[in-house]
Amino acid sequence: MPYELYYWPNIQGRGEFVRLALEEAGTDYINAARESEGVAVMLRMMEHGEHPSFAPPFLKDDETVIGQTAAILLYLGARHGLAPKDPAGGLWTHQIQLTIGDFVAEAHDTHHPVGVGLYYEDQKPEALRRAKEFRENRIPKFLDWFETVLARNPSGDGHLVGEQLTYPDLSLFQVMEGLSYAFPKATARALRKAPRVAALHNAIAERPRIKAYLASPRRIPFNEEGIFRRYPELDG
Amino acid sequence: MPYELYYWPNIQGRGEFVRLALEEAGTDYINAARESEGVAVMLRMMEHGEHPSFAPPFLKDDETVIGQTAAILLYLGARHGLAPKDPAGGLWTHQIQLTIGDFVAEAHDTHHPVGVGLYYEDQKPEALRRAKEFRENRIPKFLDWFETVLARNPSGDGHLVGEQLTYPDLSLFQVMEGLSYAFPKATARALRKAPRVAALHNAIAERPRIKAYLASPRRIPFNEEGIFRRYPELDG
Repeated sequence: MPYELYYWPNIQGRGEFVRLALEEAGTDYINAARESEGVAVMLRMMEHGEHPSFAPPFLKDDETVIGQTAAILLYLGARHGLAPKDPAGGLWTHQIQLTIGDFVAEAHDTHHPVGVGLYYEDQKPEALRRAKEFRENRIPKFLDWFETVLARNPSGDGHLVGEQLTYPDLSLFQVMEGLSYAFPKATARALRKAPRVAALHNAIAERPRIKAYLASPRRIPFNEEGIFRRYPELDG
Repeated sequence: MPYELYYWPNIQGRGEFVRLALEEAGTDYINAARESEGVAVMLRMMEHGEHPSFAPPFLKDDETVIGQTAAILLYLGARHGLAPKDPAGGLWTHQIQLTIGDFVAEAHDTHHPVGVGLYYEDQKPEALRRAKEFRENRIPKFLDWFETVLARNPSGDGHLVGEQLTYPDLSLFQVMEGLSYAFPKATARALRKAPRVAALHNAIAERPRIKAYLASPRRIPFNEEGIFRRYPELDG
């Protein structure tokens, strides 16, 4: 049975972090909510069942349903060789992923600082202030941390953990894709001080399965409905 | 060797979620950053070492250092019987914890919607709008989800997972403590529609080790430096 990934059909969003792991693993999966009636099925699954998810994405593997991006990646990482096998390494990998999740939430809040229930246009003054903070303080602080993690990896600075690819490498790639789309000027500036992050971003894009995925119709283009939105006024 | 918990010494903050698990486990631990020079040691540990944490809390267990609240609880849960032993149950427990983490982040952002680098007083108009959204939409939505999880637990509605205490039970207790402090009116209203959450909150407070902890000087009172702050204007 292929995995079924449930996520909003028209955006990359948080589903993309899961999708990149599934693509790199080369495993069979279905973008279930992009099928006919898929969104209705997704919403029903959130209303029913013993383990309802608070929000998409969630992954169905036979009878198991798992929500929360980082929990899904914890599950897939162990099953598809995208995480170290030793418990301490697995936990460190997960810790990095959770920090990426915090970064993604902050990126989202630049255009929704007041609340997800309101349109961007109705919170624009707040968004301008929050985006300035994000560009000037948060992007550099997070990138500096990832750069440090890469620099201190005793197996070399080509990966966040160990000498092989792990799922946070894929997620950091996705964050850099998103930031480069949403904040091209601020991100280019920050990347000049984080050469290892820039190199990892480039290397992931060249991995054969990722390269093929990015060129496929399965990869939805960034747009102004997702987490990373290009509102030029927010790039300063 | 006792565990060493590193967290800002004057607030409950995210460290409290870890502290409650350590207290309930009845294991030896040190609030390391409350010791003399403790904050300096904490900051040095964030600057150095192979696995630096982006932010506190982090836990030191002999040579292992773990950051990110949910990752620390994943680790402690497995070691101290605060999580199911089967992998699917462990993952569901973690999924709930990650959702609690999202809720905590939103609670924090009510008083810091623009950025952590600015004072509350410098983002008060934004805070008023964000808090309204949080009170009216987000608290009810999250509590409804926890209520549903409790109601659907096949082992009974006294716990989030299975028939015994797990670490998200303790964390949900802490969230309800914090919300009741910060938003007493809005929280009382929301709890009337979430009787199982209210009952769990009360039951955790009566557990002998938690009750002793709450009455001890180790429990720092809520204050206006932490995640949950009582600014009456934000309670509507």
